[in-house]
Amino acid sequence: MYRHSSALQFHAKPERPDAFFASRLQELVGGQFGEMTVMMQYLWQGWNCRMPGKYKDMIMDIGTEEIGHVEMLVTMMARLLEGAPSETQAEAAAANPALAAVLGGQNPQQAIVTGGAAMPTNSQGVPWNGGYIVASGNLLADFRHNVAAEAQSRLQTARVYQMTDDPGVKDMLQFNLARDTFHQQQWLLGIEQLIEDGFTDGIEDSLKDEEKTEPARTFYSFHDDSTAHEGRWAQGTTLVGDQQISFEQGRPLADDVNEVPAPDPLLFATYDGSKGPGKPGNAGGAYAQGAQNLFSKAKDALTPDD
Amino acid sequence: MYRHSSALQFHAKPERPDAFFASRLQELVGGQFGEMTVMMQYLWQGWNCRMPGKYKDMIMDIGTEEIGHVEMLVTMMARLLEGAPSETQAEAAAANPALAAVLGGQNPQQAIVTGGAAMPTNSQGVPWNGGYIVASGNLLADFRHNVAAEAQSRLQTARVYQMTDDPGVKDMLQFNLARDTFHQQQWLLGIEQLIEDGFTDGIEDSLKDEEKTEPARTFYSFHDDSTAHEGRWAQGTTLVGDQQISFEQGRPLADDVNEVPAPDPLLFATYDGSKGPGKPGNAGGAYAQGAQNLFSKAKDALTPDD
Amino acid sequence: MYRHSSALQFHAKPERPDAFFASRLQELVGGQFGEMTVMMQYLWQGWNCRMPGKYKDMIMDIGTEEIGHVEMLVTMMARLLEGAPSETQAEAAAANPALAAVLGGQNPQQAIVTGGAAMPTNSQGVPWNGGYIVASGNLLADFRHNVAAEAQSRLQTARVYQMTDDPGVKDMLQFNLARDTFHQQQWLLGIEQLIEDGFTDGIEDSLKDEEKTEPARTFYSFHDDSTAHEGRWAQGTTLVGDQQISFEQGRPLADDVNEVPAPDPLLFATYDGSKGPGKPGNAGGAYAQGAQNLFSKAKDALTPDD
Amino acid sequence: MYRHSSALQFHAKPERPDAFFASRLQELVGGQFGEMTVMMQYLWQGWNCRMPGKYKDMIMDIGTEEIGHVEMLVTMMARLLEGAPSETQAEAAAANPALAAVLGGQNPQQAIVTGGAAMPTNSQGVPWNGGYIVASGNLLADFRHNVAAEAQSRLQTARVYQMTDDPGVKDMLQFNLARDTFHQQQWLLGIEQLIEDGFTDGIEDSLKDEEKTEPARTFYSFHDDSTAHEGRWAQGTTLVGDQQISFEQGRPLADDVNEVPAPDPLLFATYDGSKGPGKPGNAGGAYAQGAQNLFSKAKDALTPDD
Amino acid sequence: MYRHSSALQFHAKPERPDAFFASRLQELVGGQFGEMTVMMQYLWQGWNCRMPGKYKDMIMDIGTEEIGHVEMLVTMMARLLEGAPSETQAEAAAANPALAAVLGGQNPQQAIVTGGAAMPTNSQGVPWNGGYIVASGNLLADFRHNVAAEAQSRLQTARVYQMTDDPGVKDMLQFNLARDTFHQQQWLLGIEQLIEDGFTDGIEDSLKDEEKTEPARTFYSFHDDSTAHEGRWAQGTTLVGDQQISFEQGRPLADDVNEVPAPDPLLFATYDGSKGPGKPGNAGGAYAQGAQNLFSKAKDALTPDD
Amino acid sequence: MYRHSSALQFHAKPERPDAFFASRLQELVGGQFGEMTVMMQYLWQGWNCRMPGKYKDMIMDIGTEEIGHVEMLVTMMARLLEGAPSETQAEAAAANPALAAVLGGQNPQQAIVTGGAAMPTNSQGVPWNGGYIVASGNLLADFRHNVAAEAQSRLQTARVYQMTDDPGVKDMLQFNLARDTFHQQQWLLGIEQLIEDGFTDGIEDSLKDEEKTEPARTFYSFHDDSTAHEGRWAQGTTLVGDQQISFEQGRPLADDVNEVPAPDPLLFATYDGSKGPGKPGNAGGAYAQGAQNLFSKAKDALTPDD
Repeated sequence: MYRHSSALQFHAKPERPDAFFASRLQELVGGQFGEMTVMMQYLWQGWNCRMPGKYKDMIMDIGTEEIGHVEMLVTMMARLLEGAPSETQAEAAAANPALAAVLGGQNPQQAIVTGGAAMPTNSQGVPWNGGYIVASGNLLADFRHNVAAEAQSRLQTARVYQMTDDPGVKDMLQFNLARDTFHQQQWLLGIEQLIEDGFTDGIEDSLKDEEKTEPARTFYSFHDDSTAHEGRWAQGTTLVGDQQISFEQGRPLADDVNEVPAPDPLLFATYDGSKGPGKPGNAGGAYAQGAQNLFSKAKDALTPDD
Repeated sequence: MYRHSSALQFHAKPERPDAFFASRLQELVGGQFGEMTVMMQYLWQGWNCRMPGKYKDMIMDIGTEEIGHVEMLVTMMARLLEGAPSETQAEAAAANPALAAVLGGQNPQQAIVTGGAAMPTNSQGVPWNGGYIVASGNLLADFRHNVAAEAQSRLQTARVYQMTDDPGVKDMLQFNLARDTFHQQQWLLGIEQLIEDGFTDGIEDSLKDEEKTEPARTFYSFHDDSTAHEGRWAQGTTLVGDQQISFEQGRPLADDVNEVPAPDPLLFATYDGSKGPGKPGNAGGAYAQGAQNLFSKAKDALTPDD
Repeated sequence: MYRHSSALQFHAKPERPDAFFASRLQELVGGQFGEMTVMMQYLWQGWNCRMPGKYKDMIMDIGTEEIGHVEMLVTMMARLLEGAPSETQAEAAAANPALAAVLGGQNPQQAIVTGGAAMPTNSQGVPWNGGYIVASGNLLADFRHNVAAEAQSRLQTARVYQMTDDPGVKDMLQFNLARDTFHQQQWLLGIEQLIEDGFTDGIEDSLKDEEKTEPARTFYSFHDDSTAHEGRWAQGTTLVGDQQISFEQGRPLADDVNEVPAPDPLLFATYDGSKGPGKPGNAGGAYAQGAQNLFSKAKDALTPDD
Repeated sequence: MYRHSSALQFHAKPERPDAFFASRLQELVGGQFGEMTVMMQYLWQGWNCRMPGKYKDMIMDIGTEEIGHVEMLVTMMARLLEGAPSETQAEAAAANPALAAVLGGQNPQQAIVTGGAAMPTNSQGVPWNGGYIVASGNLLADFRHNVAAEAQSRLQTARVYQMTDDPGVKDMLQFNLARDTFHQQQWLLGIEQLIEDGFTDGIEDSLKDEEKTEPARTFYSFHDDSTAHEGRWAQGTTLVGDQQISFEQGRPLADDVNEVPAPDPLLFATYDGSKGPGKPGNAGGAYAQGAQNLFSKAKDALTPDD
Repeated sequence: MYRHSSALQFHAKPERPDAFFASRLQELVGGQFGEMTVMMQYLWQGWNCRMPGKYKDMIMDIGTEEIGHVEMLVTMMARLLEGAPSETQAEAAAANPALAAVLGGQNPQQAIVTGGAAMPTNSQGVPWNGGYIVASGNLLADFRHNVAAEAQSRLQTARVYQMTDDPGVKDMLQFNLARDTFHQQQWLLGIEQLIEDGFTDGIEDSLKDEEKTEPARTFYSFHDDSTAHEGRWAQGTTLVGDQQISFEQGRPLADDVNEVPAPDPLLFATYDGSKGPGKPGNAGGAYAQGAQNLFSKAKDALTPDD
Repeated sequence: MYRHSSALQFHAKPERPDAFFASRLQELVGGQFGEMTVMMQYLWQGWNCRMPGKYKDMIMDIGTEEIGHVEMLVTMMARLLEGAPSETQAEAAAANPALAAVLGGQNPQQAIVTGGAAMPTNSQGVPWNGGYIVASGNLLADFRHNVAAEAQSRLQTARVYQMTDDPGVKDMLQFNLARDTFHQQQWLLGIEQLIEDGFTDGIEDSLKDEEKTEPARTFYSFHDDSTAHEGRWAQGTTLVGDQQISFEQGRPLADDVNEVPAPDPLLFATYDGSKGPGKPGNAGGAYAQGAQNLFSKAKDALTPDD
């Protein structure tokens, strides 16, 4: 359950409106790594965290903070859009190249759809979607993604920061930069804690005993004259398991070619018969085949005396 | 420029078809972290890598390998779908619960759209899209995402691995598990190399001097009775800069509330006038205001003597 | 079955081309509440209306009219795009700030993809999609959405109307404004008619007897110092059922916390064992459990004498 | 700024797991009218409400409550998915038709992607997206949509309610039904309050004086033998303005046909020259034309004496 | 302008309901090549056809027919869904494998969202979207796509046809198959007519004189041991221009490698300085450079005497 | 399996950067018919081609070439974006209309997201998605789409070609134009080869004997005063089967109207009972009905003596 208060976590006061910049700032609201993504990602991870205690509480704390970050950005946007061009401006633009730039670069939906406010979209107008978020239930894999999301988010914030010289906007973005710095570390420290608590060795390796040995320690090159062998990733020992990394040219590791079966004739794929007739489409797969055996037995049981 | 040969990197031979499993395997082809994602992500990162040499070559090598991984999975899928149900099966299903499961769980587009082959979609039929990939030009931020993508991909592979007992499928997935283990390490080693080569300290901190100090080292809690303070992320020193991490209750750090300006009257937002009249929509923003000054000067220059 | 005639319902003649405005007008073609949405929404509702007679015919009438509205807007767009910039214009733009605005604000797909015509997208280029439309089979719920769609559509039309001073465009938009005024009322009158005909009391309340009593008449506040209690929604009687509305602080109404079960070990979620072992992933849910009982009985019936 | 507590607003305790039902319940989480939609819609409307006081606070209260509703549903989902099939089940399915149904109807991403939890998608796996939400700044138009969203949401809840006989699930859904009943009324009462406070007459009619008169009070029929004239919407007086509604056959109201201009030759549209040559693509539209006049004057001013 | 009559073009009467089949039939309603696509594609092409007369009228005729085809399919769907499972069915499924198949394979939105009717989505639930349609203004290019759309649509219809043995459904699909046969030919004949009328030689070759000569008549192979040279496409003469086709191994045709410039330092891409400093981000491109020249001149003109 | 070499197939060297043009060029990278589409489409078709030999090899060759075309375009984009505006430019824009155009027309994600490089999106920022590609397994249907894709792609290239006067860009686009000319013919020749090899008569006509006769040779008109009868498509003989084409007014060909059944009462559709009671939602469809018969028999067999 959540509660709200109207105070913002940090101020979001531009010195003056700037509709041109507001269209760029959308990327930090509704982009792949905007505030909506981290808000929803952490809420979702927190709700589904399987362990009560410090991990779950930590994720919940950040997720709740991020709701407030979306609020801050949306507030900032409405202020940046104050007095934005919403009327025909042909004559004014004719006398004013910078107004022309504003008009050209403006996000039309910020006027037409929201009436002078942010959109839940990125800087190109693509709606935010749930396909951006990651919440697998595996904390190592998710924390890895959280570090990445904070790094990408901070990088984009730094790029957007250069696009304004408004002191009020810069002040808020300096706060955002700082949080992204802290949060990158927080998730890295979360991984350290997971290792210390014995949940992982830092590499996602579920079913470790099933995996092939050689491909788990070999760099394959598929590039003429690649210099990739010079990097640490192609020499020395693996981070887990203490194996020697080897560097090899990519080659077929087993005997198979891209060759697909004769088609079911009822699917009308083009086929010359060279592989014999296609299996008709009622074989039903492994499940059905297993089942047919079982049902044969049941039928035998039903009619023992015939 | 690329070249192709028909040999597969590893074999992709199921022992028998299994249309039910094929619908699940789609997640590893066209899902958020399927092979299409890493293929396109690494190709894109490689093409845009700004430094010739080992980094660019390494990314290119992996990207090229991943094209072949999509090829392997697509081949496997066509083989799993051999003889999949493509006709009305009411009577057969009536006698066969496992066929009923196949029918219910089958991906209809694998018959109707591709004629017995994989789709470029995830396990729920959502088309793969370019919004999944990440290529920022900043290698630290991108390698962080690559580690995460390989970890998520490996986790999903391990989950899918349990959903089959076909030895041929398992054999190929054991290869995939191994590559995901290796690639996680490779990108982590890539970060080590970036640090060793002096490109980063491991935290994305562009414009580091601009960011606020306190929020870069403070964990804010927004949760009643949170135990988040028990974790490493809320105590000890920061990973970079050797600052003491502090744990605090979230609170307003500046004096501002969620309050948005009086609306432009021509946008017809509901408004009671309590903040005075809204700015009409022709103020044109910072750009235009700057420009008006400049044009005033130009105009003065044009008409000095009037 | 449908028939077409080439006459437009209303004229769509701009006085002069305006590529800048055309990019904005896209919102009324292919946006969330553009003409494509109401056209498809009403056609779909009409085709699926369960009652022959005045309701079905009315919905069909409007749906058919709306096909013609898309036609009018698409025609208008091609005329607005006549002579739009389609070549490199660097030198011309250098001498002409308003041309610069046109170039910047132009929709590039209107040249590259359609050759000087409308796109089936919104003003930011996002393709129209079937997820915008609503057709539930329940006329009250659908008419409520239709009122909303007409209100949003009219509001957006009014906003777009300010962005041009072309008398021909304005003339057509005055027609559109009028239809949106009429259609809002039509759907509200449709609800009155549904009430008069005894289909509803104006509130969607299927399974009314199943719902909880208190939460159906209580306003819960989750906001510090909320003044929401001052509104009609937090006092007086309910619109149906004549209950007293109460205003309360949000609180847990039952004894439960966000706590999720121990995970299936084969899904590799991070877990410390604190809730005991997770259920293995073959329990199969309520369906399967019910089924197992039944199959046990069947098995007993099959083998009565063993 | 937001705070969280771990208590749920209402309990979310199924009596037993049910993976089949969980795939259906996704519609109420991430569908067009699921809880994610109302949560984001009300938060967005609240943040951008232009008037401090009872309206803004009321919207904020509901938006904050809805975050907790997503939390309840996500919690419920993880409990419904406990012990869901995550392994190959061919043999078990062969003996158990209900397990076959579960397997076929299961959402594979709930295992593969989230590890036994909800997805931010609808019941067919389509990711939730920002294009579902509505926040226009105009409270009448938005409240109209909110009523519709609550009505659709309640209808879908009632339909889903029939798909389970689990007493725990039903208990929670009875709470949800009640809230949807209350919220429909709340938004209708919000409209009453807007009318009472003088903001609207209940019809969105910005720029009312600009709209055409006849089309604002006429029902046009485009259907052979339509009986639509029998309804209240085609007779009596308008809800606002006290005009007589008329019923007419649809006909061209102005003299125009679907006819588009000769194309710019550089766009390579197919054209026979029958309308004369197309305007070349540098006319630049109304903006540029206005500007050219202005620049001609500027040029004259610059060179008065030549 | 359009008119509607309630008669269907062809009957759409299944002999009995079939919810399982209905979920498959969705592909022909809202899939990439479903009836919604051809309806919208032809309407859009017709509205924007630049030539009055037989081409425009022909496209309009087909587009109008296709609205009625969507209507037929939507009607068929509601009839197929009569009595579809909408309640919990655990016990019934336990006794009935075919019901289990229905339950598993059913489209849940057809119950929850539409109340027993079609959805505007494909067979996997993905909403139809405007990105499917093609309307370029160039009739050759569009007719080529129309042939393809009819061929794909017919192929999918043939595949779906096998999935039912309902005589009523088959009867309607036999009509659809026939229309797709006719329409393929119609668009091919349309191309013949375009050639006869002198609009094209059958190959889209706008700006033909600008294109390179050799790459316009050469098959490049990038595959080890490719047998592609055996086909007509790699020998004989070109279809237009009477050139000899040649077959060659793919090779670099010019001297360039994948190498991207030094980055703008303010974008924080990882870079070692090996190509010298990156251009700062204010060069502004060709447009701005052209403009600077022009403005220099203007400035000189303004200040001749200083 | 694939290999890469750093040489480009053709050079991709603009004479100077041009950020404005780069935003337009995105359409040829990630648009509906951009290079990503043909690359993925041909790879997918090749992997799934059912016949070893010249067809499969030919498709594979082109698919592999197209990976290199994406590489060329992505390289070109990074070079066009060198020195693109990435900082606040208000003052510079005020003095420079062409810079204003660049700023307005720039793709903000090319700075914020990729750091000066291409995006995997179209010219309006919509991410490329798998729904663009076509790979049905039927070579006639797919080659028809390939011709169309090359024609649309070439048309868009010709349009984009006019938008630049940079000799280096034009040089590369002349190569692209040539390949699109060749590829159109190649796929047409592929169809000739399919006909010559006896796979098809050029019309997709699977299940030809099932289709209705009259609708397969009749043009139906639904347009007042249509002149469509003047075209070749409405007279003469069919391309296959040598039937006389007839031209008729569209009319109901069978006795049916748009009329949908009484709804399942548990779905709460609005209904007046005029068609009798709706079937309750447990009839289960054709599958279940078939199954019930079979199970009745099984039950009888189980209990012969009771």
